[in-house]
Amino acid sequence: MITEQALLDVKPGQERAFESAFSEAKAIISAMPGFSGVQLHRCIETPNRYLLLVAWERLEDHTEGFRKSDGYGEWKRLLHHFYDPFPTVQHFTLVTSEA
Amino acid sequence: MITEQALLDVKPGQERAFESAFSEAKAIISAMPGFSGVQLHRCIETPNRYLLLVAWERLEDHTEGFRKSDGYGEWKRLLHHFYDPFPTVQHFTLVTSEA
Repeated sequence: MITEQALLDVKPGQERAFESAFSEAKAIISAMPGFSGVQLHRCIETPNRYLLLVAWERLEDHTEGFRKSDGYGEWKRLLHHFYDPFPTVQHFTLVTSEA
Repeated sequence: MITEQALLDVKPGQERAFESAFSEAKAIISAMPGFSGVQLHRCIETPNRYLLLVAWERLEDHTEGFRKSDGYGEWKRLLHHFYDPFPTVQHFTLVTSEA
C-alpha cells in the first residue's frame, strides 16, 4: 500500500469553490483501479491550505494508471486552476502505526 | 478530530536509528490523553523524509496536553536530534473522505 501526499495551497478566497470541485473530483479518483481511499483535510493555521492523502494499492496505480487515464484530464480541469503554487506530490510507504 | 501533520527530514544515514527511536517514542505519544492514532510513513522519492500523522481528539490535546507533558521531554530527547531542518508541524480538520 502506498500513500500519496500533497499540500495544496488554494488561491485565497477560492476555498469554498475548491471544496465543491473536490467533491466532484473525488468520484473520479475513487473509481480508479488500485484506489484504496482518499482524505482531504483543511489546515487550521493556514486556512487556504489543504492536505490530500490518497491510498493506492501500488505506486503505479497512481503514477501510471491514474495519470494516464481519461479521468485525470477531468481531475486536472476541475482542480488544478485552484493551486498557487502548483503542489509537489510525494509517495510514502507505511513504517509503523498505532490506533 | 484533528490531524497533526509534519514532514520530517532525517539526517541522511540516520534513518534506521530514527525508526528505532520512533518505535520507542510511539509508546509515549500513544499514552497521551486525547491520542487517537499515529502513522509514520517513509518517502519513496526522498528516502530520508518521513510523513508523521497523529490523530488527536482536540487540538489542545496536542498543543497543550502533549507539549506540556513530562512525556514530551522524552519524546524530544529521543527524536529531535535526527531532524535537519527542524520540521514544521501543522494541524488539519477533515473536509471529506472516502474509503
